[in-house]
Amino acid sequence: MLDITLLGCGGTMPLPGRWLTSLVVRYRGRNILIDAGEGTQIAMKQAGLSAHDIDLILITHFHGDHVMGLPGMLMSMGTSGRTEPVTIVGPKGLLEIVPKLCVVAGIPFEVMGHELSGRKEEFDVPGFSELHVHAFRVSHSVETWGYSLVLDRAGKFNADAAKALNIPLKYWNRLQKGEEIDSEDGHFTPDMVMGPPRKGLKVTYTTDSRPCDSIREAAVNADLFVCEGMYGDEEKQYAAALKKHMTFSEAAHIAAEAHPKQMWLTHYSPSEQDPEYWMEQTRNIFPETYPGFDGKSGTLKFDAD
Amino acid sequence: MLDITLLGCGGTMPLPGRWLTSLVVRYRGRNILIDAGEGTQIAMKQAGLSAHDIDLILITHFHGDHVMGLPGMLMSMGTSGRTEPVTIVGPKGLLEIVPKLCVVAGIPFEVMGHELSGRKEEFDVPGFSELHVHAFRVSHSVETWGYSLVLDRAGKFNADAAKALNIPLKYWNRLQKGEEIDSEDGHFTPDMVMGPPRKGLKVTYTTDSRPCDSIREAAVNADLFVCEGMYGDEEKQYAAALKKHMTFSEAAHIAAEAHPKQMWLTHYSPSEQDPEYWMEQTRNIFPETYPGFDGKSGTLKFDAD
Repeated sequence: MLDITLLGCGGTMPLPGRWLTSLVVRYRGRNILIDAGEGTQIAMKQAGLSAHDIDLILITHFHGDHVMGLPGMLMSMGTSGRTEPVTIVGPKGLLEIVPKLCVVAGIPFEVMGHELSGRKEEFDVPGFSELHVHAFRVSHSVETWGYSLVLDRAGKFNADAAKALNIPLKYWNRLQKGEEIDSEDGHFTPDMVMGPPRKGLKVTYTTDSRPCDSIREAAVNADLFVCEGMYGDEEKQYAAALKKHMTFSEAAHIAAEAHPKQMWLTHYSPSEQDPEYWMEQTRNIFPETYPGFDGKSGTLKFDAD
Repeated sequence: MLDITLLGCGGTMPLPGRWLTSLVVRYRGRNILIDAGEGTQIAMKQAGLSAHDIDLILITHFHGDHVMGLPGMLMSMGTSGRTEPVTIVGPKGLLEIVPKLCVVAGIPFEVMGHELSGRKEEFDVPGFSELHVHAFRVSHSVETWGYSLVLDRAGKFNADAAKALNIPLKYWNRLQKGEEIDSEDGHFTPDMVMGPPRKGLKVTYTTDSRPCDSIREAAVNADLFVCEGMYGDEEKQYAAALKKHMTFSEAAHIAAEAHPKQMWLTHYSPSEQDPEYWMEQTRNIFPETYPGFDGKSGTLKFDAD
């Protein structure tokens, strides 16, 4: 189960009543934050989420509207009593930029920075071997990355097989967790009692970018695809292209090919006053499109069984 | 005439419904901003004020809650089309810290930094020889400055004297502005037609600090004294002293000695939920005490005549 909260839905600058775009993915009581523009720490409080519980911060790129809230966020995490290290992942330049941004922050815990390289990277979320980050390069005016969070789901436990094989009950839980057992009772492996891995969960997040193949590939069959859309009005397509962003329709065309279960739009231009207005035309391209708003949240659950 | 707006009234961290403390002084269509914590650019929009028109930014000290909104503010000033230079004044370290804070800001105008030194400094607000900044050192855990904005008021123009001296009408306005006239009609000086300077206006701002003499001196006869007060509860006096802040009562004792026309309290601790609750006890010390709130504004006018 993944709890998703879109903290803000704006781009360029924070506005009264519209926070800058960032996403919290909550798993087993821990928070993963994607992007932190100015005000994100306030949006997080408004959403009832605790900055204290952020273990991993993923940065898409180093434009102000995506990182200027980082020092304040880290400072407030410190004020809240956090002492455990935090990992920050982002584009090349991170190891130089983050310390500068945080020049007056006074952070009482270790910040571990990791700069992405190449076109793709995959790594586990700290503390969870079943939850992975797939980072993928997208197409913006500066080096920018999108992120999928991918939660594995083990196969079904076959209690009948465990009984038939006389595997003592005390080992069942460890086998379910993928552990191999070498004991006086015998040698037991997970494949003896576990069915094939089941479909897990995937949330794919991308902003800022032009439409590109890496996004289409990342969003394939995602349970949730959070995608930027600067403008609803297709007549602003040229402006969107010029600024290396996309329109709602362009986002919907990506979704129509990638088939996520649903798409949330976000990162609206300050000039985009009423995203809902454009939903009819956008849903003609991809029916399961929803306009993001500050605090929009949802829970992604495993399929029944 | 000075228009004053307290953009926020919080300290330590921005909260939902409470922006961090900063003040805008507006004079003849231009804005002077004191401090810029995270979110100040949003608070400014909410107050109906334009970041575009800020010519001078005064920084009290380099704690995050007073400067982390600076890069976003400057960036939005650029987005709004500003190309004219901006002056930023603050403590030693400014010339090193501000460029770091602004590492991702991309500012399309010149930022002119000035580091204060000594215990006091006085200088004119750019563009106005009649409006001065008096900066004074206060007593906090790091180098911190308070600021008074002092608006001069010329003496009264004596039209009868001008007529008696046969000074042609076309020179009256220039004499009123303090200009000396050397012309074919004669040599005229302002003192021939102007009375003695009249009482001007003064607004004094200080946060963060323990009570100290420099504040008491700066606030003497101020038209408005904006002063920090972390806690209303006098039982938190020890905590206030430990953090180099003050209680409402301590601020009121300063005011009782300095005799400003009124005092606004600000920079409340996040734990201070209801500043109004403490007004009765505070007004027993200084009756003209008012609790600051986000967007509290007022206009300081010259005395009649």
